[in-house]
Amino acid sequence: MKDKIYIVKIGGNVIDDDANLASFLQLFSSLDGAKILVHGGGKLATQMAKQLDIPQQMVDGRRITDVATLKIVTMVYAGYINKNIVAKLQSLKVNAIGLSGADGGLLKAHKRNHATIDYGFVGDVDSVNEGLLLQLLKSNYCPVIAPITADAQGQLLNTNADTIAQEIAQAVGSAFEVHLIYCFEKAGVLLDVEDESSVIASITNNNFQQLLDEEVIFAGMLPKLQNAFDALNKGVAKVSIGKWDMLHSIATGSSGTTITNE
Amino acid sequence: MKDKIYIVKIGGNVIDDDANLASFLQLFSSLDGAKILVHGGGKLATQMAKQLDIPQQMVDGRRITDVATLKIVTMVYAGYINKNIVAKLQSLKVNAIGLSGADGGLLKAHKRNHATIDYGFVGDVDSVNEGLLLQLLKSNYCPVIAPITADAQGQLLNTNADTIAQEIAQAVGSAFEVHLIYCFEKAGVLLDVEDESSVIASITNNNFQQLLDEEVIFAGMLPKLQNAFDALNKGVAKVSIGKWDMLHSIATGSSGTTITNE
Repeated sequence: MKDKIYIVKIGGNVIDDDANLASFLQLFSSLDGAKILVHGGGKLATQMAKQLDIPQQMVDGRRITDVATLKIVTMVYAGYINKNIVAKLQSLKVNAIGLSGADGGLLKAHKRNHATIDYGFVGDVDSVNEGLLLQLLKSNYCPVIAPITADAQGQLLNTNADTIAQEIAQAVGSAFEVHLIYCFEKAGVLLDVEDESSVIASITNNNFQQLLDEEVIFAGMLPKLQNAFDALNKGVAKVSIGKWDMLHSIATGSSGTTITNE
Repeated sequence: MKDKIYIVKIGGNVIDDDANLASFLQLFSSLDGAKILVHGGGKLATQMAKQLDIPQQMVDGRRITDVATLKIVTMVYAGYINKNIVAKLQSLKVNAIGLSGADGGLLKAHKRNHATIDYGFVGDVDSVNEGLLLQLLKSNYCPVIAPITADAQGQLLNTNADTIAQEIAQAVGSAFEVHLIYCFEKAGVLLDVEDESSVIASITNNNFQQLLDEEVIFAGMLPKLQNAFDALNKGVAKVSIGKWDMLHSIATGSSGTTITNE
């Protein structure tokens, strides 16, 4: 029987508000057992780019990362956000240790090569050094991971935090029973995107096709669900999606949407 | 017989110039055996503060760290500089892992309480989590340490990198034979501050008092030397001071100034 681990991903909706972040970290710190936190970016990088007069270009919700923007996201994600989260978790008695994908070769990546769009210094993950994570977890450290990776030539790359959470969840799946939790701004996967009470509590392989056929799932959620099933097929036990302030009830399955491979 | 370890500190003179940094990292990567790199800040934080219109105040060469400045130094030191060094070392086959003092409780600190000067968010180190360093070193990781620490309340603090190097050297002294190397812009401790060839090759407890009596040592070097003897009294085997591009010959004692407790 494998030990349980929670891998929790938070994004801008938590990070951008100091009070929200403090509340979330309190909740996270009281989750029992092994845990890893993966954080995204948030508005601070955009604000910083504006203050420094560096124009930002978004394509399909992804930030085009030129040299100046890479510098900003490295500073903001791996520096300011990561170290603030780590210091706050330490004060809550969680032995947090902040890592980017460059550190200890945690996430080896390559620069995205897209047929029509030049994303700039955006990286896609090739491999995870799960040995480093397992060693730290064994000594009761809690890895806190920033969405910056590096390629084999030492080039830093801006990388999607959802993907990083998934890759890490898959990588530690042979050693742990992994519960991957995506915290976002909605209460879960909704039947009606305008109605927070219309959460679909459980999505399984069995009912997913039916839900697709009935076209009841908000289209924006489909890639997240496909990735969730992908993770489940690669050794993750359970994936949940829900609102950050319900972390404990998402963990027990009493709120949010839980996706399993049944 | 203890294994040797090099603890090398670099400052702005190396960090501020991409070509110098690349050359230095090449030299550092080819130092044999266990090693830790501690880096300072450099001009990038000052440039960033200027671009963001945040006035900087220096007292006795120390940066007064208000909230806005703390944000900048956290971004620049623990984010940009640290992750670039780590990624470059990784590409040179050194399994570098970047840490601030907040990470894994590496450097517990307190906000400086000075009788007459309010340094702001500047920290003085109380303790080192040497267990984390020893564990990483045992697995052949190379810790790369940024000069940001945290207090018990989760407040990040700007901290002198020379001091951090010394504290870390002392902390691992029971497990390793420590050679602490300070890389700076001069060839070593000079008899004549204008003459790079006037390096004093060796300073020991025995000849230090004599050198002081003869008033041949540049006054600006005295605090560094006092700290060096302090480190030697706390378990460090050898302290060297020299120019960064001579790293290998400093390590063997054929250039720079070597300070020992004889």
